[in-house]
Amino acid sequence: MDPIPPTVEWRAGRIRLIDQRALPGRLRFVTCATVEALRTSVRDLTVRGAPALGAVGAYGVALSARERTRRRDVLADARRLGAARPTAVNLRWGVDEALRAFNAAGAEGALMRAHAIAAADIAGNRKLGALGAALIPDRARVLTHCNAGALACVGYGTALGVVRAVHEAGREISVWVDETRPVLQGARLTAWELDRLGIPYQVIVDNAAGSLFAAGVVDAVIVGADRIAANGDVANKVGTYPLAVLARAHRVPFYVAAPVSTVDLATRSGVDIPIEIRRADEVTHFDGVRRTPRRARAHNPGFDVTPARLITAIITNAGVVSRPTRAKLRMLHPGGVTRPR
Amino acid sequence: MDPIPPTVEWRAGRIRLIDQRALPGRLRFVTCATVEALRTSVRDLTVRGAPALGAVGAYGVALSARERTRRRDVLADARRLGAARPTAVNLRWGVDEALRAFNAAGAEGALMRAHAIAAADIAGNRKLGALGAALIPDRARVLTHCNAGALACVGYGTALGVVRAVHEAGREISVWVDETRPVLQGARLTAWELDRLGIPYQVIVDNAAGSLFAAGVVDAVIVGADRIAANGDVANKVGTYPLAVLARAHRVPFYVAAPVSTVDLATRSGVDIPIEIRRADEVTHFDGVRRTPRRARAHNPGFDVTPARLITAIITNAGVVSRPTRAKLRMLHPGGVTRPR
Repeated sequence: MDPIPPTVEWRAGRIRLIDQRALPGRLRFVTCATVEALRTSVRDLTVRGAPALGAVGAYGVALSARERTRRRDVLADARRLGAARPTAVNLRWGVDEALRAFNAAGAEGALMRAHAIAAADIAGNRKLGALGAALIPDRARVLTHCNAGALACVGYGTALGVVRAVHEAGREISVWVDETRPVLQGARLTAWELDRLGIPYQVIVDNAAGSLFAAGVVDAVIVGADRIAANGDVANKVGTYPLAVLARAHRVPFYVAAPVSTVDLATRSGVDIPIEIRRADEVTHFDGVRRTPRRARAHNPGFDVTPARLITAIITNAGVVSRPTRAKLRMLHPGGVTRPR
Repeated sequence: MDPIPPTVEWRAGRIRLIDQRALPGRLRFVTCATVEALRTSVRDLTVRGAPALGAVGAYGVALSARERTRRRDVLADARRLGAARPTAVNLRWGVDEALRAFNAAGAEGALMRAHAIAAADIAGNRKLGALGAALIPDRARVLTHCNAGALACVGYGTALGVVRAVHEAGREISVWVDETRPVLQGARLTAWELDRLGIPYQVIVDNAAGSLFAAGVVDAVIVGADRIAANGDVANKVGTYPLAVLARAHRVPFYVAAPVSTVDLATRSGVDIPIEIRRADEVTHFDGVRRTPRRARAHNPGFDVTPARLITAIITNAGVVSRPTRAKLRMLHPGGVTRPR
């Protein structure tokens, strides 16, 4: 059995989420009976991670379609939910996919599409993991940032899916886990997953990555993605771009692992990706206790953009794209991810 | 009057330190009556910062010389204190300077030397500040890491001394303050100093620096140093090296500001600098509360090494060394900092 329960699950007409704010201390769940509750859970990071948000978007529309009697209320719910977080393209994608099914086949259609997206997430991540594992040498010491594991998806994981696939093949692998300030998704979530999976890891402050590259103890970097532009530029958790620059300086391969739904052909390049600016108190406070002077201002971008030229390969469920370019990404995903709005 | 009291001060035969662990919440002091108490304050970061540790080392020997009756006890105190933190060379330097004065002129000699070191710190930093200010363009947005301000010295500051000199000259300047995990010297100490000095700043998580470089809103990086090797390689707070790599990638000047006592001609290059590995719980816990899974291991190097080739200039009280080399550093400081042990 999978040691990590599904991040997002439809249960008797409601949506059950792992409460990621409580990890690693406690494994507890939040159940959302309304789209508004789901939207709150998206905004407060009860659930996060681009692929997970794809399923959340789809299930949210299915939920709305069951509860609402008027079509326009479903559309309004969908719009509000889809805009809850601007950077990850998967949320809107999931919403749009389920809306399309709703338009064609009503509430039942939306739910079927959501189930299909959730199932495809896990199956796709296993495929992605196997494809990525082939790129990882034996006894690799892999560095990852934020959490691109089962908790960022419905299950299995993308960047950590690659790590997991290597581990499941019986090959040695270990992970340097960036703690990932300000929300500590690395220290809290990635470490929790690796602990459950029995994969060796050490947590570091984000600042320490440079000294590990310099010491020659990083064999590859693998991260997830919140949006991949048509030219291969990647938006991911803030702090990803510096790792790509360091990896290049030290000739260490830098891999991005993400489902094809993260590729957004409607976004030309990285400069067109909206970057969510989050609340200053994520920086100024820990656990509600202020760490800075009272008048201190803080700037808190949630994401940064890594240019395609620094990326060794993008690993997807539909194939590996080495040295990503616009043409290669279009080939990978001929239908493209179009955002009708 | 200086809005920031002296970090280290001799008061009636005891050593008064600003308790830097309590900042920015409270400005309180710790008074050390024994070398052992002083050593504890060095190890628990009540006082930190390479130049401050130089004065602490010298005053510590002066304290021991007054209290101890046997010469060999003073030597033993000096040895223990000098080894309390391995990376910053200034601690040993201060100890050695005061010991030499003690050998020549007894307890009074040691104290006079300590007073001279403390006075020279502030005067030297003002000089360094003025020299550095000439390098900074108008309306510069400067990024700094950790704390290389008055609190890292006896007073005035090195990297922040440069910022302060620009500000005191009536020129506009603003500062991006890296919070500097794990101990948050940026968010807590640098922000506190800038707040007191009325210099505009914003705090960022260390991860956000890359996106600021990419956005073109960093005009210069200025950091301090814990040890400068004979070839110009610089050990400083972990996270400094990634900034130097980013600065180079974005053609932003990268300055190191430090007193000449930080240059250690006895250390050939960066690989010869001992890097202090600090306790894992600085990473795994915040305020005594665990953030990682219970079994999580953490790796916690306190410093990293920035190679000389990434440094635009080293700004010292004795002059500015552009594109540092072994020959230039030897010229800067012909006597060298020799460590007899």
